[in-house]
Amino acid sequence: MTLKRDNLNLTMLCDFYELTMGNGYFKYGYKDRITYFDVFFRNVPDNGGFAIAAGLEQVIDYIQDLHFTEEDIEYLRGRGLFDEEFLAYLKDFRFTGDIYAVPEGTPVFPKEPLLTVRAPAIQAQLIETFLLLAINHQSLIATKANRVVRAAEGRTVLEFGSRRAQGADGAILGARAAYIGGCHGTACTVSDQLFGVHAGGTMAHAWVQMFDTQYEAFKTYCETYPHNAVLLVDTYNTLKSGIPDAIRAFNDVLKPLGIRDCGIRLDSGDMAYLTRKARKMLDEAGWESCKISVSNSLDEYLIQDLLRQGAQIDLFGVGERLITARSEPVFGGVYKLAAVEDEAGNVIPKIKISENVGKITNPHFKKVYRLFGNDTGKAIADYLTVYDETVDETKPLRLFDPDATWKAQEITNFTARELQVPIFKNGELVYQKPSLDDIRTYCLQQVDTLWDEVKRFDNPHNYYVDLSQKLWDIKYGLLKNNS
Amino acid sequence: MTLKRDNLNLTMLCDFYELTMGNGYFKYGYKDRITYFDVFFRNVPDNGGFAIAAGLEQVIDYIQDLHFTEEDIEYLRGRGLFDEEFLAYLKDFRFTGDIYAVPEGTPVFPKEPLLTVRAPAIQAQLIETFLLLAINHQSLIATKANRVVRAAEGRTVLEFGSRRAQGADGAILGARAAYIGGCHGTACTVSDQLFGVHAGGTMAHAWVQMFDTQYEAFKTYCETYPHNAVLLVDTYNTLKSGIPDAIRAFNDVLKPLGIRDCGIRLDSGDMAYLTRKARKMLDEAGWESCKISVSNSLDEYLIQDLLRQGAQIDLFGVGERLITARSEPVFGGVYKLAAVEDEAGNVIPKIKISENVGKITNPHFKKVYRLFGNDTGKAIADYLTVYDETVDETKPLRLFDPDATWKAQEITNFTARELQVPIFKNGELVYQKPSLDDIRTYCLQQVDTLWDEVKRFDNPHNYYVDLSQKLWDIKYGLLKNNS
Repeated sequence: MTLKRDNLNLTMLCDFYELTMGNGYFKYGYKDRITYFDVFFRNVPDNGGFAIAAGLEQVIDYIQDLHFTEEDIEYLRGRGLFDEEFLAYLKDFRFTGDIYAVPEGTPVFPKEPLLTVRAPAIQAQLIETFLLLAINHQSLIATKANRVVRAAEGRTVLEFGSRRAQGADGAILGARAAYIGGCHGTACTVSDQLFGVHAGGTMAHAWVQMFDTQYEAFKTYCETYPHNAVLLVDTYNTLKSGIPDAIRAFNDVLKPLGIRDCGIRLDSGDMAYLTRKARKMLDEAGWESCKISVSNSLDEYLIQDLLRQGAQIDLFGVGERLITARSEPVFGGVYKLAAVEDEAGNVIPKIKISENVGKITNPHFKKVYRLFGNDTGKAIADYLTVYDETVDETKPLRLFDPDATWKAQEITNFTARELQVPIFKNGELVYQKPSLDDIRTYCLQQVDTLWDEVKRFDNPHNYYVDLSQKLWDIKYGLLKNNS
Repeated sequence: MTLKRDNLNLTMLCDFYELTMGNGYFKYGYKDRITYFDVFFRNVPDNGGFAIAAGLEQVIDYIQDLHFTEEDIEYLRGRGLFDEEFLAYLKDFRFTGDIYAVPEGTPVFPKEPLLTVRAPAIQAQLIETFLLLAINHQSLIATKANRVVRAAEGRTVLEFGSRRAQGADGAILGARAAYIGGCHGTACTVSDQLFGVHAGGTMAHAWVQMFDTQYEAFKTYCETYPHNAVLLVDTYNTLKSGIPDAIRAFNDVLKPLGIRDCGIRLDSGDMAYLTRKARKMLDEAGWESCKISVSNSLDEYLIQDLLRQGAQIDLFGVGERLITARSEPVFGGVYKLAAVEDEAGNVIPKIKISENVGKITNPHFKKVYRLFGNDTGKAIADYLTVYDETVDETKPLRLFDPDATWKAQEITNFTARELQVPIFKNGELVYQKPSLDDIRTYCLQQVDTLWDEVKRFDNPHNYYVDLSQKLWDIKYGLLKNNS
């Protein structure tokens, strides 16, 4: 037995407890009880200052396709745990609730809801795993890619990691997320075909080895792809034969055609030293136009280090350390109950306490505002309120650290923008999905609204996610009553 | 646009350079040239002593489904790089070569081929990305799972990580690989449905929060699932209310039914302290039969540490650190040309040298033997030979360190087993795929053939992968000629 993609129902990609709880809710009359769940995360990967939200498109597709097939229900029946009434209910199961979310590409911070579900308990519970999976994975890679791209300081960054991805989705959707975060393209062909993430690539070592001589391999490649001639120069000895053979092939094939654009790629060795040497050899041979690409276990730290050493690099191919977010391969998004509605439709806030203080949740159905300074255009702080509050931009706003309330400031001359937008209303999609290019552009623009101190790789400035006084009072009231 | 699983053609999950090279091979008459490629890895993740090979089943399914659709070819045509003859050739593209591989579940070591492809150049090149992706991902998770399971010293280990997996495949196939490595089950429903990896799970914090009191939540759960009552006791305060409420629910619901099997789960707090306290409270209440499960950011190191502290734990739910192999989320399998055939069918060995000595390949079409001591049943070393060599078990065999040839030993009274078996011959599957349970059993048996020194987590004994004298001579001959 294997994973047949053409008959895989992602509705069944749920934690089994979502079904046992669903059956219980059904049995005890909680089926239609309206619940509010928040998706949020507690820590930025790599101790960064912010993350990039992504994965909403995958969530939308999943929600629209929610259903149980006959085979799914048969499988569940075979487990001997579920009531027939519940199984009958699953036959016509679909999502009828509301979803609010921050658009993909938005810089986001710990403890604020990236996505909020308002739905009957069974529905809200069942979608937990896939929502988290989609948002965690896409946000993880978009966040990492944005770090790598910032480290490259304007140079081209391509995603090269398919072969080391954690499964096919990891490769295909990973390339999508990397593009959102700022990468310029990918090596993954199908990601281009599906999403329009430009796929490129030239040769592997095998191409060079296939020919009797390296020069012949290079010459043949230049003849085949004169406008795309990027030659891999490290199969034997980069400086002794790789670059000389490349220059000879450029001279013999491209020069007579009047073509100046070309490139070399290095995949091993001391990149700082070799690229400086290579640049010198290429320039002296009249190939100042030849671009230098490198691609060996790169990440944001190595890229910064190479550039600091004066490495001569035009393009970075970033593989395993991007596609798996190797330095911190988990985006810890969680899905927590924030409120329920009573029969009269009143929203009753709920809190989860836990022995670990860091795991205490922000209760209630909330709004997330981002406050921008009108003088700078920069983001000042995020501000969580209860759903029925609004921020009046014409009045000074008092912000205080929710964990140290004596630390306070009053801000004026600001603009408050609600981050979450409606995605589903009563089960219907009410959101116009943006194009991938628009998401990428939006992401890079929004990252520009953050102060440089927040964007630092090491010890970034802590960006505040504050609570309104009303929300704070509710939270600490619940804490007192429950502990 | 999004990833529609039902019309996704994994053939297009290839690095773009495989297509540009394929087009080049086609154009220059190398299309039918027989090539040999090895899949091997250079380092064991987490500095472990061995890895577990997995992913062969995914490779088989992929190879059997290799094809280009009209839309795929249209997309490629649109890129403006490929010759019409090549695109026409892709229409009827299928795999016609041979594949040899070590069975899934086999412990494997650096620099030995896990899988070898013998096929025409274009075919062998095109399948590179997916082969690596499948083997890297499945081997990564199987290897990590085996570490976690060994740390748990016979206690039950369940895979709980879907929500933090890197994509849907990461979750679904990750649960499969975790099972191969020795996990006892998963929380991922669809992995049970597809592969028969038993899925289990009981309640999330939301269940507890949904009811007016924790006791009511527990009691209702026990009534619904009296034979599956595992109660999550850390929503409010584990010792003050969680365990007392659980005991009360067990007493009120299970006791009258005569049911003794039940459990509690902790998801936060000081596990060593809390589980010892919990055990005492449960025992004193007459619930010695109640199992204790824990599930908070566990891995092999934390599990070892908890057990060393005398934590009272029966079951570990291991999430993000297993499903992403967090401590080392990359399995670095590579795909390297090892040989080509000339027109007369002679196998010509090929080597890749590289500036990094560690990246130098073992050339030639090879056999991989595992040598077992007849007295102990334990694996002594692996032994790579040229394809036309055989090992004579009746004669002493001289083994030497390929990097330090003066370190040598002679072994006698051994059995030599070939690790690779034929999977495809002329494009036809000749391998009977074992069941997942058989793979798991085989894996655990084979791990038992390794000495404890090789299985250590820290500074494991280096298991030798030696070369025959003939293979060593060929390799060092090529090195001299090419450098």
